[in-house]
Amino acid sequence: MSELRKDLVSGRWVIIATERSKRPDDFRPASPEKKEGGSGFCPFCMGNESKTPPEVFALRESGTPPDGPGWRVRVVTNKFPALSPGAAPPKSAKGVFQWMPGVGVHEVIIENPDHDKELSDLDTTHIRDVLRVCRQRIKAIEEELHYQYVQVFKNKGKEAGASLGHPHSQILATPIVPKRVKEEVYGSERLFRTFKECIFCRTLREETTLHERLVLRNDRFCVIAPFASRSPFEMAITPLRHSPFFTSAEDEELASLAGVLKTVLTRLKTTLSDPPFNLILHQAPNPTLSQKAWPGIEQYFHWHMEVLPVLTKVAGFEWGTGFYINPVPPETAAGYLREEK
Amino acid sequence: MSELRKDLVSGRWVIIATERSKRPDDFRPASPEKKEGGSGFCPFCMGNESKTPPEVFALRESGTPPDGPGWRVRVVTNKFPALSPGAAPPKSAKGVFQWMPGVGVHEVIIENPDHDKELSDLDTTHIRDVLRVCRQRIKAIEEELHYQYVQVFKNKGKEAGASLGHPHSQILATPIVPKRVKEEVYGSERLFRTFKECIFCRTLREETTLHERLVLRNDRFCVIAPFASRSPFEMAITPLRHSPFFTSAEDEELASLAGVLKTVLTRLKTTLSDPPFNLILHQAPNPTLSQKAWPGIEQYFHWHMEVLPVLTKVAGFEWGTGFYINPVPPETAAGYLREEK
Repeated sequence: MSELRKDLVSGRWVIIATERSKRPDDFRPASPEKKEGGSGFCPFCMGNESKTPPEVFALRESGTPPDGPGWRVRVVTNKFPALSPGAAPPKSAKGVFQWMPGVGVHEVIIENPDHDKELSDLDTTHIRDVLRVCRQRIKAIEEELHYQYVQVFKNKGKEAGASLGHPHSQILATPIVPKRVKEEVYGSERLFRTFKECIFCRTLREETTLHERLVLRNDRFCVIAPFASRSPFEMAITPLRHSPFFTSAEDEELASLAGVLKTVLTRLKTTLSDPPFNLILHQAPNPTLSQKAWPGIEQYFHWHMEVLPVLTKVAGFEWGTGFYINPVPPETAAGYLREEK
Repeated sequence: MSELRKDLVSGRWVIIATERSKRPDDFRPASPEKKEGGSGFCPFCMGNESKTPPEVFALRESGTPPDGPGWRVRVVTNKFPALSPGAAPPKSAKGVFQWMPGVGVHEVIIENPDHDKELSDLDTTHIRDVLRVCRQRIKAIEEELHYQYVQVFKNKGKEAGASLGHPHSQILATPIVPKRVKEEVYGSERLFRTFKECIFCRTLREETTLHERLVLRNDRFCVIAPFASRSPFEMAITPLRHSPFFTSAEDEELASLAGVLKTVLTRLKTTLSDPPFNLILHQAPNPTLSQKAWPGIEQYFHWHMEVLPVLTKVAGFEWGTGFYINPVPPETAAGYLREEK
């Protein structure tokens, strides 16, 4: 089983992932002629269901049995999970070292059976179904397994960390609330006291008035190029209806979000020749925990998504300082992303 | 001039770097046949001194004039500086937005005249001289220009963020103390209260006793694969003599550090087929500021260096949580790095 370890000085946790354990030779640069997938075989394609761990959930044609063809969206446990199921154990500590067993959930959402159809190529009904599956899996993991935080994310492209080309998203649930999530919760609490309102609601209002960083706004969502964007062409997608929990999103909101995602990911693809990107869901920790640990979180936290195109490198300066250097002002990026190409 | 902008929720700063401003086309993936450098011309090579901004400092043969041949180590202002000189201005704020002009220093240390000689290929006297130049530049920037933090780092290889192949390091001085540096200072202060001693001194002692993560130890420095390594084959290089400031390192310490760097970077190169890496100096903020803002920092902060090989990608999970997934336990990494290959 993997191990969670804490760096005491920074408060950062790492997963020492024994299931994925590697030797130095595994890091040798791949020869250029060696294409991704090698043999051309993909375990996520329709017909290859037996090559993944058993499915956890699927949207499939009625009458088709699990782990066979006939599905539209399919969720399986990651074959090389960073975390594995188990009861949340207490932390161990000895001298300056703190650790715990790597318990948690690591699932893969195979977004559609077609290897070459990216998320933005799907029709909005299908994208909505992917979002509904996310909502359902988060709810199940929070209510049945009680893990403290559920992180949903998508790595698109090798440079963004995807190891398989077939379009998929991932769910990783951790037995502790990660540092960056805590920072966001405490940060928004502090700003709620300063501004007497949710910082996300306030930002949406100011950005809509200013307009210069606005990418898109409909009756349910707003997309902006954030004022302090770390990455060129970064986008924040925020629901207009205030709620800390993605699981509280209603069907109509997910339908609207599907349309928004299709639009902005298509624009990103056209503007920048199909760049690698990370799509990251930001939500409050497990509601049961949140209500105990952060009373009032319903007022000050606001779920949202981030799109981070991978166009620059995280280098020494970023590692040392936590600063990011972004060569494209978000006002310029929004100008490109706002218009249909 | 660039702009520093703050993300209020996370407390993270970014540099919107107008000097490096890019359009979407600049991010098109380079065609594979286009080699780095293109024409083969390198502005850092001996004889091309006129192609860089004027030198700020150099170690050169006596009698040779600045900005011509005859140097061993040469420091110039970055041609596309992320930050530019100026008086540290006050922060501006309007509504939810906070920013300030991008003032600071951005210098390049050209480590040697030979394009193909990496830092670890130089003899230890030359590496010591590079370290001495770092020490001198940091001192000058802190004492004359009063910037709050001086970050020295090296990006080796394209994947690690280097845009030129000629071996070089960089210095970026910021008018504020970056978030990650503050975290490290506050973290080590808190741990000093817990352990009644410097957390870095304590860790060195425990790691030396345990031995399993020890890579190298001589009479002045200790190199370990940190317990909570983010990256496979990560190393922390820490002086045995406690001090928060790199500028307080004595000549004999820099000579010893030069030998240590040569050894561990050579081992990294051999073990992992010359991987890209980031080398990052961690030191306390400007001493004048440190003594005012963090009384007692001399006791609890301890300068050190990190070597972060770039072997995995920062992906959605890392961005969302601040967690890192490391497929190589540091105990395994130390085993490979400990022995001469």
